[in-house]
Amino acid sequence: MKIKSLVTGGAGFIGSHVAKHCLDMGHEVIILDDLSGGFEDHIPAGAVFVQGSVTDEALVSELFATYRFDYVYHLAAYAAEGLSHFIRRFNYNNNLIGSINLINESVKHKVKCFTFTSSIAVYGAGQLPMREDMIPTPEDPYGVSKYAVELDLKAAHEMFGLNYVVFRPHNVYGENQNIGDKYRNVIGIFMNQIMQGQSLTIFGDGEQTRAFSYIDDVAIPIAKSVVTPAAYNQVFNIGADKPYTVNELAKVVGACFNVTPQINYLQARNEVMHAYSDHTKAHAVFGEGSGITLDEGIRKMAAWAKEVGARKSKEFDNIEIYEKLPQGWEKKPETAAATV
Amino acid sequence: MKIKSLVTGGAGFIGSHVAKHCLDMGHEVIILDDLSGGFEDHIPAGAVFVQGSVTDEALVSELFATYRFDYVYHLAAYAAEGLSHFIRRFNYNNNLIGSINLINESVKHKVKCFTFTSSIAVYGAGQLPMREDMIPTPEDPYGVSKYAVELDLKAAHEMFGLNYVVFRPHNVYGENQNIGDKYRNVIGIFMNQIMQGQSLTIFGDGEQTRAFSYIDDVAIPIAKSVVTPAAYNQVFNIGADKPYTVNELAKVVGACFNVTPQINYLQARNEVMHAYSDHTKAHAVFGEGSGITLDEGIRKMAAWAKEVGARKSKEFDNIEIYEKLPQGWEKKPETAAATV
Ligand SMILES: NC(=O)c1ccc[n+]([C@@H]2O[C@H](COP(=O)([O-])OP(=O)(O)OC[C@H]3O[C@@H](n4cnc5c(N)ncnc54)[C@H](O)[C@@H]3O)[C@@H](O)[C@H]2O)c1
Ligand SMILES: NC(=O)c1ccc[n+]([C@@H]2O[C@H](COP(=O)([O-])OP(=O)(O)OC[C@H]3O[C@@H](n4cnc5c(N)ncnc54)[C@H](O)[C@@H]3O)[C@@H](O)[C@H]2O)c1
Repeated sequence: MKIKSLVTGGAGFIGSHVAKHCLDMGHEVIILDDLSGGFEDHIPAGAVFVQGSVTDEALVSELFATYRFDYVYHLAAYAAEGLSHFIRRFNYNNNLIGSINLINESVKHKVKCFTFTSSIAVYGAGQLPMREDMIPTPEDPYGVSKYAVELDLKAAHEMFGLNYVVFRPHNVYGENQNIGDKYRNVIGIFMNQIMQGQSLTIFGDGEQTRAFSYIDDVAIPIAKSVVTPAAYNQVFNIGADKPYTVNELAKVVGACFNVTPQINYLQARNEVMHAYSDHTKAHAVFGEGSGITLDEGIRKMAAWAKEVGARKSKEFDNIEIYEKLPQGWEKKPETAAATV
Repeated sequence: MKIKSLVTGGAGFIGSHVAKHCLDMGHEVIILDDLSGGFEDHIPAGAVFVQGSVTDEALVSELFATYRFDYVYHLAAYAAEGLSHFIRRFNYNNNLIGSINLINESVKHKVKCFTFTSSIAVYGAGQLPMREDMIPTPEDPYGVSKYAVELDLKAAHEMFGLNYVVFRPHNVYGENQNIGDKYRNVIGIFMNQIMQGQSLTIFGDGEQTRAFSYIDDVAIPIAKSVVTPAAYNQVFNIGADKPYTVNELAKVVGACFNVTPQINYLQARNEVMHAYSDHTKAHAVFGEGSGITLDEGIRKMAAWAKEVGARKSKEFDNIEIYEKLPQGWEKKPETAAATV
């Protein structure tokens, strides 16, 4: 019998790549995605697609009863970290309660491994590089919800023996990214702006740094995790090592579209200035990464973006708190600002 | 104009005492409680009672709009730590999402101080004594939900300036405790068992220790916190200093009812063996405690318990995971086991 894997968020960016790798490994893949941030086009051929939300307890329970999954890859989330201050309830409901529904069912149905994409947002603004043996202190609701899920998985493991693997990816980019989300993914936002002839928007002076990571360096280890017992019940940073400033990034992206981008600097947001992770642990267990450089990765993504074209930014409809909402996040898509 | 305070969980044990102290301080007190674990009888005369849940977003929003609270004391929760493994979704929904509804409204309405009862459950099984400068790593869903609220309050303070005070009380007992909850409050469970002529049930060998804390040492600082600016945006352990074993406790409780209790030792649960906190910080800001001893406190509570009589244990109806549910927590109230 084929191995059965559930991939939540499989119509999204990272999830669609993970689903593809699972199919390549011979799994039967069921994708659960509510299309709030994903696209049916991204679902790889051969996967079963169920449109629905991880917050729908009855649906989740029915899927587990029907398919009796061997593995769960839980990637569904709304990952707009900066926006999470303003959509607290939505954030915890979608990202935490949704995860808990899956953990409950995974315990009941004795799933063999539960792989979860957390985030470097759990670290907070601590020392650099971020290392897995630091005790996290997340500083925004998105990071808090991710860390709560990590802790809950650990508790479920201790109590019920549920095996898990936690990944903390770092600013991922590549084909299938939602370049129309104005609240997150600076690279996608830049490409979308360039293709619409707009200037690039940057919060602050653009000297904040991030280690932008190409999708293969993230999706491949995630896909392999369930068949890597050495990874079980461990946490892994994952992604690229070398940090770049957002200003450098703007130049690289511009070059791939043969433009010298105009930059519109907006008021700085409440965000960490620098972030990069130590990946020694992931490399020891999953091997070295693809070695792909920022130039190469951006070029691949740009080729794909040119093919699919610009996407209209959607507004997030249910802002809960308007106070201090960053400039450009009001109801005017044309002033959308890049966020890292 | 009178100061207006919201006390959630004000029909419960600690909340009813806090509400009483607020009335004594001259506040107009509005109590929001769904009576899931509280009693209308406990609501102090003079308080306005609204029956409803903190998870009811529309109701919470309406209350804030109507009363424009100066202070929020958020005590509503279901605090059955040991049971939380088996009622994960309920736990996060009730204890975290409910709190987030209140934080959202407190930000919007510029509440002056938000006081939250967290728990020593946030510490996990680390070093002793537990101190506020340790970084928490909670190990069960109840502790995770409490810590997530603490972190969210900190984030709300940094972003929006909402002032908060977090208390981590330690095994509180006293008048108005729900002695009919078989999933928590070992002292109440013992009294309820004695008054029904049952033997006392203890998980494990009874040599686990806790620093049982009399209600006044907890409710008075909580009530004062909002008018103690030195406490703002701080976390405080609160409660008694001296740990006792559960076996010692059984003797003290027995003595107050003039019985030598029979003890029924059940299989040990997954719980920390020893727990006590350092209270230096709370004493510096709120003064020394009442100095009441365990004997005195138990005697006061016993006098009250004899007056109100035994209470029938209610079953928790919506267990989500039955696997590994501790002995005595199945649908047979007569085998209810004491939990610390
Ligand atoms: N992209 C990054 O840089 C990055 C970094 C760290 C962590 N992550 C995490 O990786 C995961 C995937 O992120 P991504 O970048 O691919 O985002 P994405 O938005 O492209 O994918 C998320 C997918 O989840 C779906 N989804 C959201 N809420 C859902 C719900 N309640 N029920 C069902 N489906 C739902 C969306 O429709 C979308 O298809 C997320 O958990 C995210 O937090 C991403
Ligand atoms: N008693 C302790 O030893 C202890 C220790 C640490 C922390 N705490 C915390 O102190 C607070 C009060 O605990 P307690 O011992 O007085 O418990 P309690 O059960 O006596 O009081 C809690 C009250 O909250 C109410 N409630 C529960 N869920 C609600 C909801 N969704 N909406 C509205 N009301 C709701 C219950 O009906 C009850 O009246 C809790 O937050 C608890 O986690 C208690």
